[in-house]
Amino acid sequence: MTYGTVTPAVVAELRAIVGGKSVWIDEERLEAYTHDETSSDEYAHAPDVVVLPTTTEHVAAIVKLANRERIPITPRGAGSGLSGGAIPVFGGILISLERMDKLVELDLDNMTITAQAGMVTNDLAHTVAEHGLFFAGYPMSVETCQIGGNIAENAGGGKAVKYGVTGRYVMGLELVTPTGEVVWLGGKLAKDVSGYDLKQLVIGSEGTLGIVTQAIIKLTAYPKAASDLLVLFDSPRAAIDLVPRMLRQGIVPTGIEFMDRLSFQTSCQYLNETLPYQDAGAMLLIEVDGNDPAAVEADLLAIGDLCEKHGALEVYVAEDRNAVERVWSVRRNIAEAFKVERPVQSLEDIVVPVASIPDVIPELERLGAAYGMQIPCYGHAGDGNLHATLVKDPAMDHATWLRNKDACLRELYRFVQGLGGKISGEHGIGLKRKAYLGDVTNPVEIDLMRAIKRAWDPLNVMNPGKIFALDAGP
Amino acid sequence: MTYGTVTPAVVAELRAIVGGKSVWIDEERLEAYTHDETSSDEYAHAPDVVVLPTTTEHVAAIVKLANRERIPITPRGAGSGLSGGAIPVFGGILISLERMDKLVELDLDNMTITAQAGMVTNDLAHTVAEHGLFFAGYPMSVETCQIGGNIAENAGGGKAVKYGVTGRYVMGLELVTPTGEVVWLGGKLAKDVSGYDLKQLVIGSEGTLGIVTQAIIKLTAYPKAASDLLVLFDSPRAAIDLVPRMLRQGIVPTGIEFMDRLSFQTSCQYLNETLPYQDAGAMLLIEVDGNDPAAVEADLLAIGDLCEKHGALEVYVAEDRNAVERVWSVRRNIAEAFKVERPVQSLEDIVVPVASIPDVIPELERLGAAYGMQIPCYGHAGDGNLHATLVKDPAMDHATWLRNKDACLRELYRFVQGLGGKISGEHGIGLKRKAYLGDVTNPVEIDLMRAIKRAWDPLNVMNPGKIFALDAGP
Repeated sequence: MTYGTVTPAVVAELRAIVGGKSVWIDEERLEAYTHDETSSDEYAHAPDVVVLPTTTEHVAAIVKLANRERIPITPRGAGSGLSGGAIPVFGGILISLERMDKLVELDLDNMTITAQAGMVTNDLAHTVAEHGLFFAGYPMSVETCQIGGNIAENAGGGKAVKYGVTGRYVMGLELVTPTGEVVWLGGKLAKDVSGYDLKQLVIGSEGTLGIVTQAIIKLTAYPKAASDLLVLFDSPRAAIDLVPRMLRQGIVPTGIEFMDRLSFQTSCQYLNETLPYQDAGAMLLIEVDGNDPAAVEADLLAIGDLCEKHGALEVYVAEDRNAVERVWSVRRNIAEAFKVERPVQSLEDIVVPVASIPDVIPELERLGAAYGMQIPCYGHAGDGNLHATLVKDPAMDHATWLRNKDACLRELYRFVQGLGGKISGEHGIGLKRKAYLGDVTNPVEIDLMRAIKRAWDPLNVMNPGKIFALDAGP
Repeated sequence: MTYGTVTPAVVAELRAIVGGKSVWIDEERLEAYTHDETSSDEYAHAPDVVVLPTTTEHVAAIVKLANRERIPITPRGAGSGLSGGAIPVFGGILISLERMDKLVELDLDNMTITAQAGMVTNDLAHTVAEHGLFFAGYPMSVETCQIGGNIAENAGGGKAVKYGVTGRYVMGLELVTPTGEVVWLGGKLAKDVSGYDLKQLVIGSEGTLGIVTQAIIKLTAYPKAASDLLVLFDSPRAAIDLVPRMLRQGIVPTGIEFMDRLSFQTSCQYLNETLPYQDAGAMLLIEVDGNDPAAVEADLLAIGDLCEKHGALEVYVAEDRNAVERVWSVRRNIAEAFKVERPVQSLEDIVVPVASIPDVIPELERLGAAYGMQIPCYGHAGDGNLHATLVKDPAMDHATWLRNKDACLRELYRFVQGLGGKISGEHGIGLKRKAYLGDVTNPVEIDLMRAIKRAWDPLNVMNPGKIFALDAGP
């Protein structure tokens, strides 16, 4: 199979669709679209052309053209992805949704917001906050990421223990299919079994089953009370051991975030922030929310007591929003901090049953020692979703690092599989984990995925080269 | 395309797979498997053979045999379905899951239960209740229905306003694919984006994409407090008008159930029950739950005040569980009561955006008058999911009834489509609504469904004839 090329005639046709100012072919401008937040050295690849549509009709016309010429398409949101999903590995046409950032409708009666896919998640959050509402599925990269990208990756976030992830809040979406048809899936409906749940299939399919152009998001009334607990421990193990114990109490916190020392110290350094407790071995940041301040208080006290009984060094109740926001900012910026401070690394996204997370920490320590690397760890402990990060020792040569990283990941992923876990909880498979998915997945499951991909995208033009290889299948 | 037939050799092979006592071909025994809870007169069809496997391996072997001989398979749970999904329209092999009713694992650390698909939902509920846990996605037919059927239909229930439907609680499932392969999808994971969400695609696919043989169900701590409000109105419109108003308050009730007079009177008659308030024009049954009794009380008071301010005749706070259980029993038995007391009828399952439900009642009144039939209505008002029931006037001849029912449904469904709604919220399309789905669905969406069905079930043996016709597609 060979793809068609982006000829001057194709570029002219793209210009006719979206206008000349929305089609870029100069190398300088293309550069920004060669990578996402994964390592540029390992994964970057340039598109032949970047197109910036503003309407669904533009997107559909571009996709139809790409099918006619068999040119690969890569859809892209903010480029804040962590698995290489927006990288145009086969060149071709990159469709950036960044100019499709309009609010379509705020429906207060049904408590929904409809937006174009390129709307920045924070803009959406601010728009609805004015009405006392919030989008509970927001991810950690809320300041830059876009709704369409959140949907493509089924992004998680810091409130998933209580509120779940993006997919729970997507009531409907407008999809441009891989062959360029336009269809709305779902609607403003609390339930719907009128045929297959195609909407949920598209969510998390990383742009391989079409391009989401608009979405209807379910909003929730802002909880009237919220409070945070910061709990310090002498070691990561002591912190993580408490998580399943906490969840068994019947209290459902909004989120339980975990950071080990290297993770929060790296983020503090990056932010030029000083926290009074930054020498602790590990910390948990626990949020509780609800409509009744007394109930929130009671839950926090119960959690605090439990922590003190089971090995916590200190329990701080955050007194003001400002102090809390500083700690959350440290937590949110860890990934970015490692990228800047320790650029040669691999940010992982394993997820295991919550009761099994205490087993993960000793294994990470063992793997770090075995492969000569540091493996700091942080993440959404309450979801069993840990961002272990393999960090290259500056003394290690690059070839050894690449070999050790690969071997270490294979061991880690098999260990996770043995616990009943998966290799990605919220970042996706994309390009970064594609070579590993088959190792830890029943081939029957991969074949079922491939069958859908082939049936919807017979020419394999829609974000090809992501999640699995098509040609290796039956 | 013609299907193969169930020859004596096929029956012998089935007996070799599951044992002679688990394969039935005598007409008397087959009769019970010819219909579900839809009208037998209109939809019943006999299978050629009923097989009662007890293991996943049995199911897989039967499906492989069916593929080899191209014999249609119809999977069946309790037969409590309301859209004809379990009716073997093309004869062939009916696989009843009724003997696959075992508890596989109760995992208190992860708060999950794993069960075979044939476990009765009530048995599952009782098992976990002993540990203070509950399955929040339970449907109204909880006393008879089975977990596998709940999953096949993505069943709703009386708690969906707060807790959502079955699909939210299915963490993992074991599937025998349409070609007889066995695969586990999902797991005990709070989040997972390791490839397409095939688990969610299977949920609600009405047995057309394979047979669910086991499932991992997420459990929730039993709320420590729950209370109900029974609110009487002089008309259905007055009751329904209050529902979106209530939801806009920011209080999230567990459920808001609606019954008009004919619905609850028919159920009372069937149950030989007398309620003191059964002459009201309509009623809402509102449940609130939570961990804090004072907060539950406060929410109920706020809802009661709102009802009194906006047209309620009477507001009763249920004083004891026994009184509450009597009203819930009336609500749960309406469908069965209509089936017995008014057997010639069509139970509908429309779902609309919550803010639009007040528009539905006048339209039902108009359609009833136009087509000479009563259309009583009840259902999950808080989800926008109403069980309007077209009831034949005894004076109308049968041919006119069938013609009028068809014309009335087409009008109703188009009206619902115009509101942004769908024709089934929780009962499914199955056989009963198959002829109508195309009327109110974008052909692109149906083609995407068909493409998946063809890709997974190339011989079309897995519950064929449900949801859509395959041959009419591209």
